Amino acid sequence: MKAAVIGASGYGGVELIRLLSRHPEISLHSIYSSSKDQVPVTNEYPHLHSICTLNLEKIDVEKIINEVDMVFLAVPSGVSKELSPQLLKNNTKVIDLSGDLRLKNPEDYKTWYKKAPIEQTWLDKAVYGLTEWNRETIKNATLLSNPGCYPTAALLGLAPVVQEKIIDGNHLIIDAKSGVSGAGRGLSTNIHFAEMYNNFNIYKVNQHQHIPEIQQQLVEWDQHIGPITFSAHLLPITRGIMTTIYAPLARPMTTKELHELYQSIYEKEYFVRVRSLGEFPSLKDVAGANFCDIGIDVDERTNRVTIVSTIDNLMKGAAGQAIQNANLMFGIDETCGLDSFPIYP
Amino acid sequence: MKAAVIGASGYGGVELIRLLSRHPEISLHSIYSSSKDQVPVTNEYPHLHSICTLNLEKIDVEKIINEVDMVFLAVPSGVSKELSPQLLKNNTKVIDLSGDLRLKNPEDYKTWYKKAPIEQTWLDKAVYGLTEWNRETIKNATLLSNPGCYPTAALLGLAPVVQEKIIDGNHLIIDAKSGVSGAGRGLSTNIHFAEMYNNFNIYKVNQHQHIPEIQQQLVEWDQHIGPITFSAHLLPITRGIMTTIYAPLARPMTTKELHELYQSIYEKEYFVRVRSLGEFPSLKDVAGANFCDIGIDVDERTNRVTIVSTIDNLMKGAAGQAIQNANLMFGIDETCGLDSFPIYP
Amino acid sequence: MKAAVIGASGYGGVELIRLLSRHPEISLHSIYSSSKDQVPVTNEYPHLHSICTLNLEKIDVEKIINEVDMVFLAVPSGVSKELSPQLLKNNTKVIDLSGDLRLKNPEDYKTWYKKAPIEQTWLDKAVYGLTEWNRETIKNATLLSNPGCYPTAALLGLAPVVQEKIIDGNHLIIDAKSGVSGAGRGLSTNIHFAEMYNNFNIYKVNQHQHIPEIQQQLVEWDQHIGPITFSAHLLPITRGIMTTIYAPLARPMTTKELHELYQSIYEKEYFVRVRSLGEFPSLKDVAGANFCDIGIDVDERTNRVTIVSTIDNLMKGAAGQAIQNANLMFGIDETCGLDSFPIYP
Amino acid sequence: MKAAVIGASGYGGVELIRLLSRHPEISLHSIYSSSKDQVPVTNEYPHLHSICTLNLEKIDVEKIINEVDMVFLAVPSGVSKELSPQLLKNNTKVIDLSGDLRLKNPEDYKTWYKKAPIEQTWLDKAVYGLTEWNRETIKNATLLSNPGCYPTAALLGLAPVVQEKIIDGNHLIIDAKSGVSGAGRGLSTNIHFAEMYNNFNIYKVNQHQHIPEIQQQLVEWDQHIGPITFSAHLLPITRGIMTTIYAPLARPMTTKELHELYQSIYEKEYFVRVRSLGEFPSLKDVAGANFCDIGIDVDERTNRVTIVSTIDNLMKGAAGQAIQNANLMFGIDETCGLDSFPIYP
Repeated sequence: MKAAVIGASGYGGVELIRLLSRHPEISLHSIYSSSKDQVPVTNEYPHLHSICTLNLEKIDVEKIINEVDMVFLAVPSGVSKELSPQLLKNNTKVIDLSGDLRLKNPEDYKTWYKKAPIEQTWLDKAVYGLTEWNRETIKNATLLSNPGCYPTAALLGLAPVVQEKIIDGNHLIIDAKSGVSGAGRGLSTNIHFAEMYNNFNIYKVNQHQHIPEIQQQLVEWDQHIGPITFSAHLLPITRGIMTTIYAPLARPMTTKELHELYQSIYEKEYFVRVRSLGEFPSLKDVAGANFCDIGIDVDERTNRVTIVSTIDNLMKGAAGQAIQNANLMFGIDETCGLDSFPIYP
Repeated sequence: MKAAVIGASGYGGVELIRLLSRHPEISLHSIYSSSKDQVPVTNEYPHLHSICTLNLEKIDVEKIINEVDMVFLAVPSGVSKELSPQLLKNNTKVIDLSGDLRLKNPEDYKTWYKKAPIEQTWLDKAVYGLTEWNRETIKNATLLSNPGCYPTAALLGLAPVVQEKIIDGNHLIIDAKSGVSGAGRGLSTNIHFAEMYNNFNIYKVNQHQHIPEIQQQLVEWDQHIGPITFSAHLLPITRGIMTTIYAPLARPMTTKELHELYQSIYEKEYFVRVRSLGEFPSLKDVAGANFCDIGIDVDERTNRVTIVSTIDNLMKGAAGQAIQNANLMFGIDETCGLDSFPIYP
Repeated sequence: MKAAVIGASGYGGVELIRLLSRHPEISLHSIYSSSKDQVPVTNEYPHLHSICTLNLEKIDVEKIINEVDMVFLAVPSGVSKELSPQLLKNNTKVIDLSGDLRLKNPEDYKTWYKKAPIEQTWLDKAVYGLTEWNRETIKNATLLSNPGCYPTAALLGLAPVVQEKIIDGNHLIIDAKSGVSGAGRGLSTNIHFAEMYNNFNIYKVNQHQHIPEIQQQLVEWDQHIGPITFSAHLLPITRGIMTTIYAPLARPMTTKELHELYQSIYEKEYFVRVRSLGEFPSLKDVAGANFCDIGIDVDERTNRVTIVSTIDNLMKGAAGQAIQNANLMFGIDETCGLDSFPIYP
Repeated sequence: MKAAVIGASGYGGVELIRLLSRHPEISLHSIYSSSKDQVPVTNEYPHLHSICTLNLEKIDVEKIINEVDMVFLAVPSGVSKELSPQLLKNNTKVIDLSGDLRLKNPEDYKTWYKKAPIEQTWLDKAVYGLTEWNRETIKNATLLSNPGCYPTAALLGLAPVVQEKIIDGNHLIIDAKSGVSGAGRGLSTNIHFAEMYNNFNIYKVNQHQHIPEIQQQLVEWDQHIGPITFSAHLLPITRGIMTTIYAPLARPMTTKELHELYQSIYEKEYFVRVRSLGEFPSLKDVAGANFCDIGIDVDERTNRVTIVSTIDNLMKGAAGQAIQNANLMFGIDETCGLDSFPIYP
């Protein structure tokens, strides 16, 4: 099985290179960038010296669809909507890591991304790749829309309480914190080292484009979920997302009961680790790995539940989940090539 | 005016030393530690070389009350309740940075601190030192209970909307993030460098002792405030606290109107900086200074307000506010000795 | 092939667990700690949840030598010298990551480690595991002394110029910088998070115990090498060592010639990456991987050579090289289980 | 006394703003930037909210020399050589923080800065502002060339052993490490947060433009000093420089004797702190302050001396020393406005 990565010079792209270089069933055939042509990827990423000898090439759709079985699109929003339709022509399967195919209603895309949306037909065709909750559909997908990093963490944390209607969906608050790699490799003063080190901030307050993506899935699970509040903060670290989620209970439940529910729901999921009762995950517990770790607490004093979920934003939040989905789409074991463990400390 | 610092080998203590060493009206007379006797403070803190030539001494209450006008207690909870009553005997004024005197109801202290409380009489005597909101009472205090770091940030952020009854107090969520200096200088695996670096975690979920302190003040401002949810997270940085606060609006209001309200309320407060409309503070904007910076947003989609407040936990969250209060208690200009600006970058 | 790890609760130990849990030829059979008994390793290291279900056990030499083929000793200096002789009794092979067996002259151990040395007979038996330069002897070792982290970086960088007598060995300066994980998991104020963050320091000036280890190997390669100066600094990061090495040239040579020499000498070494001409490695280029990256420059103005070598101190500087050596000792392919690539960014 | 800062939007410039905003004798009159005109400085640096209400203005030499007594040039190399001659016309004194006036031989500037040098006449006029060693000349300077950050740390560390001819000047190695603020506020991939965090690297190997500056001063002190080797490394922190210096002793001396020499030489220097015997400075010991801290050791085994000096690169390495020099040039007490203490932790 041969794969190409488009957008290979970004952080999502280089993480795909890391994973595909060791994948036993999928071989990395070629890598593309909008800004480089015939440049060794080691010029951009010297750590790949002796690991990846490919050149970054200029995007050539015809060449790509003739040569590979699948394409990973690790491109900015707005690019994928141009490339996806062309890439699908030749039975090539497309795994899109951008936001272009995630919102089913094109109006939402216009509102939140401030760009023209892709045509509805492609949105209808795209399968949302929240693997643990959409596995059967993903298996037959040809156009896969890989979830956003924040939505992955938030939705895996919320799925049990929303699906089981345990929370009152009218007061749902999601406070999220992400490492800086989530902001990409593009230069900007606010993520210049000296500015961000020893710092912490909030951004896009009440305007983050992942809000409608989370909202859409939650409402699909339970139509009674009201408008959510989601905040994104930037942590002065490289990788990792934590979402701390707050909601009132809709019916009485103890921490122990809720913990048992989470355990039973995620029991067979290799990549979702419900942590021991009373234990909450740290970001470093998942760094470099494809896990989503979850801790929960019911507070009797307030009648609210606190849910904490953590992922590595470049793994389960991007490249890792993309590989997980590609595995499913090609009938490969879901964990294949994803067996790297967290680097600690 | 002469001051002593008890608990000078901790981070709150050494910040008091930094501030008092340059204070034009208060001179640092002596410093005390429970574990050291006649040890130069530079042994513990070599950066004070040539700045502070004092020795850490064993605590000797008689000596202290005979020699100084005020005592700063930068000790762990449980110690201050023993020392405060003795120190007050000789007209010495006491500024307590611990949690021992903050909760007016001794039962709350027992519940949240898991220790025996001080007698009610001392709790009645203690004045809560949230300077901007209790200035007149502080001026006459002899026993000052300096607020906790998280409560300072949360309460300064919430005061306008609570006092003006702008929010629905039944769905109040405070998501707080603190730098590691807040955990003190005591050694512990979770704040060992290699464990905490490149990491982030949540702790004491729904059990943090600052919950009742915040609740108590909010209810004093508006008795309709219901049980709050407050979460504490540990940021892999040295200093700073951000609280991100969420609450439904109780009556219609735009971001612009709310921003104007905050500006007018805090207009004359030198240490509270309501940031420009649409702007939110970063932690480094207040590092090393006594400011509390605030940003706000009203989200029409959800009808909720988001309030962000930031402080340096060792300054406005501890030593800085303690000096601010001491200035008031001794008729000194409130900003005296607190004119250091944020270190940036 | 079955392996045990003694000292599994330290950072070297947990890195061995990470590597052995995925090793296709060696299975991790049991793990031991001096301070824990029948405690799940996930209590100490929650990130191993669902990855390693072993308990930390009390050290029981009889049990160990009856059950496993090899033992990794990731213990502090002074412990290994007690355990190694006992463990060797039953044909169990021992890979010792401590400093107890590295110095061939027991007097050196006494001088630099300030402890009683092991008997000479064991020192004679121990094979020094600088893999790339001692491969054939390692294959037949039963008692393997794994090199120190700093010596590994310094010696791989210096081997070509020392063996080829390109430098004047009387003015050799090695300035080394290490991440904090090298200092272990034991608590200490200087590596308390708030103290070390945003900081940098030098330690054990001219007294580091790795000085005689480096000196011993260099003199073995070229007896004309004079006393070296080696300095160790602590970087406020988790992993990685860089050594910057300075020496006068003994004979004329250009950067290009020297670079070609390094390339030809290390051409067949998978784990040594001589970087492109003019390029120098960063620490993150090797994080999480077993590589040693090298860059060199000849300065015509000073007639000195600058050599820069980098490793991950827990990988090539400890657990990674230990696995590499174990592979050789058991006839397994040398790179087996060591194919994880650097995590970037 | 009125001052202007040109280049106020860079890190050196904003540190000058911090210091001048509180300086009791010099008032900050106006600030200039090559790229901004009539933009509030708080747009660029929101932490200055309520502290500095000035606008960044377009550079207007005529206006400047009519309005202020002194100009601080915190501009990149190449700019100062254009501005300095014009600014000096009206008795305005100029303190230049760039490299344009540091090398007395214009050929050196061409070689190391790869740019056309300023005319010799201005180089002759410029006074090198290594305050502690050039105090009397500085007092009469009208054109002050403020030393580079690395040279300040290296030269203060080396002055005693070079001036007293204690070391053999033919084998002098200076290994320097700097925080990232030294690289300025200009964006670049290598100091993008995600690239530099948890990283460490070496740059401009044997080609750093501070080499000839250090060499020039050392040779002025002792003409027998041979070509030095100086390396610059980038630490993943914000502020601070450490230089670790190695040289053979030219005559026998113990650590104690050398320490006494340093103490006696620097006894009266407020900003140079020779640390206690056996003690070495950490970077954080000087963060935010104008100190240079020094530790020394003589190694009997190698007959070499190790000298460690640390500064805050934006303070003693730039803005702090510039103010110190300005104080001298205007007959103000040398420490005036420089009494801020290190922020710790």
